Amino acid sequence: MKHNYLNNTPLTDAQDIYFAHLLKSGFTFNTEKIPSAKATGRILYQAVYALICSPHYNASAMDGIAVKSSDTYGASENNPIILGQNQYAVVDTGDPIPQNYDCVVMVEDVTELPDGKVSLLSALHPWQNVRQVGEDICMGDMIAPSFTKITPSLCGAFLAGGVTEVEVIKKPKVGIIPTGDEIVSPTSNPRKGEIIEFNSAIFSSMLSEWGAESVIYDIVKDKKELLKEAISNASTECDIVLVLAGSSAGRDDYTSTIIEELGEVLFHGIAIKPGKPAVLGNIGKVPVVGLPGYPVSAIIIMEEIVKSLVDLYYKKTTKEVATVTAILGKRVVSSLKYQEYVRVTLGRVGDTLTAIPLNRGAGVITSFTKADGILVVPQDSEGFEMGEKVQIRLLKDISQIENSLIVTGSHDPLIDELSDLIRKKGHSFYITSSHVGSMGAITAIKNGQAHLGCIHLLDTETGKYNKSYIEKYFPDGKVKLVKGVGRIQGLMVKKGNPLGIKSFADITKGRYVNRQSGSGTRILCDFLIGKNDMDKKDIDGYKNEEFTHTAVAALIAAGNADCGLGIYSAAKMYDLDFIEICIEEYDVLVDEKAYNTDSVQQFLKLLKSDELKERLSEMGGYNFG
Amino acid sequence: MKHNYLNNTPLTDAQDIYFAHLLKSGFTFNTEKIPSAKATGRILYQAVYALICSPHYNASAMDGIAVKSSDTYGASENNPIILGQNQYAVVDTGDPIPQNYDCVVMVEDVTELPDGKVSLLSALHPWQNVRQVGEDICMGDMIAPSFTKITPSLCGAFLAGGVTEVEVIKKPKVGIIPTGDEIVSPTSNPRKGEIIEFNSAIFSSMLSEWGAESVIYDIVKDKKELLKEAISNASTECDIVLVLAGSSAGRDDYTSTIIEELGEVLFHGIAIKPGKPAVLGNIGKVPVVGLPGYPVSAIIIMEEIVKSLVDLYYKKTTKEVATVTAILGKRVVSSLKYQEYVRVTLGRVGDTLTAIPLNRGAGVITSFTKADGILVVPQDSEGFEMGEKVQIRLLKDISQIENSLIVTGSHDPLIDELSDLIRKKGHSFYITSSHVGSMGAITAIKNGQAHLGCIHLLDTETGKYNKSYIEKYFPDGKVKLVKGVGRIQGLMVKKGNPLGIKSFADITKGRYVNRQSGSGTRILCDFLIGKNDMDKKDIDGYKNEEFTHTAVAALIAAGNADCGLGIYSAAKMYDLDFIEICIEEYDVLVDEKAYNTDSVQQFLKLLKSDELKERLSEMGGYNFG
Repeated sequence: MKHNYLNNTPLTDAQDIYFAHLLKSGFTFNTEKIPSAKATGRILYQAVYALICSPHYNASAMDGIAVKSSDTYGASENNPIILGQNQYAVVDTGDPIPQNYDCVVMVEDVTELPDGKVSLLSALHPWQNVRQVGEDICMGDMIAPSFTKITPSLCGAFLAGGVTEVEVIKKPKVGIIPTGDEIVSPTSNPRKGEIIEFNSAIFSSMLSEWGAESVIYDIVKDKKELLKEAISNASTECDIVLVLAGSSAGRDDYTSTIIEELGEVLFHGIAIKPGKPAVLGNIGKVPVVGLPGYPVSAIIIMEEIVKSLVDLYYKKTTKEVATVTAILGKRVVSSLKYQEYVRVTLGRVGDTLTAIPLNRGAGVITSFTKADGILVVPQDSEGFEMGEKVQIRLLKDISQIENSLIVTGSHDPLIDELSDLIRKKGHSFYITSSHVGSMGAITAIKNGQAHLGCIHLLDTETGKYNKSYIEKYFPDGKVKLVKGVGRIQGLMVKKGNPLGIKSFADITKGRYVNRQSGSGTRILCDFLIGKNDMDKKDIDGYKNEEFTHTAVAALIAAGNADCGLGIYSAAKMYDLDFIEICIEEYDVLVDEKAYNTDSVQQFLKLLKSDELKERLSEMGGYNFG
Repeated sequence: MKHNYLNNTPLTDAQDIYFAHLLKSGFTFNTEKIPSAKATGRILYQAVYALICSPHYNASAMDGIAVKSSDTYGASENNPIILGQNQYAVVDTGDPIPQNYDCVVMVEDVTELPDGKVSLLSALHPWQNVRQVGEDICMGDMIAPSFTKITPSLCGAFLAGGVTEVEVIKKPKVGIIPTGDEIVSPTSNPRKGEIIEFNSAIFSSMLSEWGAESVIYDIVKDKKELLKEAISNASTECDIVLVLAGSSAGRDDYTSTIIEELGEVLFHGIAIKPGKPAVLGNIGKVPVVGLPGYPVSAIIIMEEIVKSLVDLYYKKTTKEVATVTAILGKRVVSSLKYQEYVRVTLGRVGDTLTAIPLNRGAGVITSFTKADGILVVPQDSEGFEMGEKVQIRLLKDISQIENSLIVTGSHDPLIDELSDLIRKKGHSFYITSSHVGSMGAITAIKNGQAHLGCIHLLDTETGKYNKSYIEKYFPDGKVKLVKGVGRIQGLMVKKGNPLGIKSFADITKGRYVNRQSGSGTRILCDFLIGKNDMDKKDIDGYKNEEFTHTAVAALIAAGNADCGLGIYSAAKMYDLDFIEICIEEYDVLVDEKAYNTDSVQQFLKLLKSDELKERLSEMGGYNFG
């Protein structure tokens, strides 16, 4: 057993010292010459000066005839001037003005006479209707200074100025080395113990968005010599090297030791969470960063360290972090030991933009895919209270966030299917959904944190659903309850039902997996415990809480538990046996203020649509009475 | 001579009818399957569901030992529990939990005893320190709905969910056909009458930014059959076809006629300026757009029509146009006949963001490269007054605009060189410069539209520079005058001085080219006219005004004029002869409120730097006394 102590350097200290050290070690950009026509998006290395004028000759700005301005002096409606065939030349727009002429009469103003003569009714001044040499660009003028990001129109201006090739900063080449005995390339069929290596795909995409190129090396097994050879080789081929740890601290150790042997390690362990186990070092002028194995940790290090390395390479000095002020919808507690990065969803309900924290686990990549932004809790802060104003770093366009319908409450695949139908229909709004259980939906609507809440709340006294809860929690109204679907709840058990579970009372025969407190399914569970005169203490696994039907099904399928309550479609998906218990009413609670908005109406319309019914029928366990 | 009348359909009418017609004609996207790892930035066609759970097995979340939780019950500081070798297994983070174990003790909490036994001081609950199956993603869960733009973390989530391939919207293929006898591929050595074809490079870059692929076809000569064949061929190979007109109306006509013959023309002539001569048509389900020849006109049509076509292809319904409110710094007059697109620079001085209109010529690509935004003047508006609040569509990041030092006034390459040095030094601010002449600088500083103004204003009574103007126009102070450089003004004449011009009085020997009213050089010119007892009327070309020294030099070099006043460096650049007239003081006027800002101080420091002196010395005609 290895035991690996890390340092805990504050992030800004680590950044300042590391970046200064790299600059001193010679970390800098290379340049390359590329065709101007392909240069959009690249960064100019040298100022570009026009090599020729544009236009580079006197060009007609009109279709018409080129004449000598002095030949037209005195012309007027009453005194037309007649020019002979040798006093003009027909020109089209863009044609050069022939020698001895200095202006152009528009075709509309020319009267053609017999014998090829023309008559003009007004005088012209020199260079009228002519694009003179250099009208747009003069030879020798600077078209753009160095370190300019090239736009499409600049790329046109370079070509107009005769500059067919420009010297730009070469994109940094970032080597990505995945490591670990258990790491395998992406597959839909991994074996037990095999970890799918998807971090390199994430990082390579991020790098490309930042203007870097990446090369993903073959996965290196956990052998020190192999890893050393791989890092050493990458450091000669790349401008920056990233070593992706498996998730073991033992391997972190290798990375750090090897970088130390080949170069220097400045920091191992940074006071941020997630992201702590990062290694910051260099081999000569090449920065080498050891990234933690957990995807969320590694993404934070990518954002806080590697993105800055790319900026440093480009000598980019300004940091553009789009932020927005939001009201925190849930308390966030954080340790003074770390600067913490909490993923949040953002939703505008009425006038208030609310940030709701997501799962904080470092291994949960979906906390990033669902997140709209990041709340950074500084190291010297213990967190924020619910209702506090906080700054959120945006991960999505604010326009998409502002256009989102916030749907929360009980988990059901129906919400995802609706969300997909909304996209398929080409609606201009989005769905942001979260699973907080039926009671969570009631709280969220009460607090103005959601437009819609999905609930299936059993009134244990009457055996009816939802209505009595609305009366209790919304005595003043202000919400509407819209009929949703009926769905079959029951016990999920392993295929073949090896423990012979026949009814809820039988769940003590095996290990149970529960749903979180506040969820409709949990309320059903507790109701059934009471009804069957059971004791919670006798239920093995009562404290194991999951947040979705599929999570419960997945654990039963994996053998982590023997039974759990859930909906039929989840059981079917995981090929589990299912013992029906009841049909519940899964309805939609709507904030009255939002009820008449187009997005809510479209949502409710799709809730009743044949398309949705078709999809749910295929999943099974729903009815639409 | 051809004469080509166009219609003048209001833009929104044309858009609505054209886009509806295309949808009816079957214009839509194709799809393709690509590896998930390469999918960032693409648009999903179908919802993606997880094929496997992530993790797909129970994985240790720590380095430590896997044990059975029930074996640890009752353990405490006072009551350590000893486990034998067959009661635990060493696991690293990510390792599968071996059969019969259900939790992991962190290595820090394990005391190793002789004989391979271990001692524990606290109890664990089932699945503690274990990442259970499906913790992140459950098989069957929707990872993303259709028409989602794929982010790096989504791409990771797909792979984590075992989805190695996704179906995405295929990028539309846009065919670009440049046409025209006089059009040539980019070169630094065009012959007279040859027009460099740079529009296709601009458009191809724009299309790539919008998510489209482009294929640039060979330039087609002005032969109807050839163009017809090219358009017909492109319409079978591409999703959208763009025909780039030469700049002649005659050729516009071909395009329109050919599209009509092969398909339909819906509009020829749109009520916008620039951009009017556009042709909107289709061949079957393929939109075919004829773009005007002038780059600025064509860019507007690209933005207003072609970008919408790409969005239509993707079924994208939301338009994101970043705008900002600014104060108009100069009156803009516009015709009721058109919706007009006026390019503007934007600058923040103090609290005010000011928009200054740029050159409105359709052929002036640099009006786009210099522009920070576009002011759209609606068709039913005659324009805006100076000082009015206007909405500006942003062409640059607002952060760059907010970080810009606004330098205006007299033209001198020195400003461009300074701007380049600022970028080379890696400063975090930018320079936005414009040439409005020395008097323009005084007005701009007075009106709070610039931080710095460059002036060389001769007091014709004292023969001294600048000071008396400051006293007159800023009686209350509020500005500082900073010493700049001395520079040699003189007469530029053709190489060899064929007209034998020896002094200013000799300019009547040929055609003169003047500078704009309000420029320091114009004031010098008028002073010299008075001093030499000359009459403006005797000066051929007195009314020909240019805005820069290089523009004057370019016209003399091209033979459009015989002489003009300007600085030595411009004459040298164009290989002209130069008759020195005086050494003037080119100084910098600073808004007092801005004087102590870091950016102004850095600017002034670089003004005195050896780097700048070196560059100016190489250009010649400066002194630094």
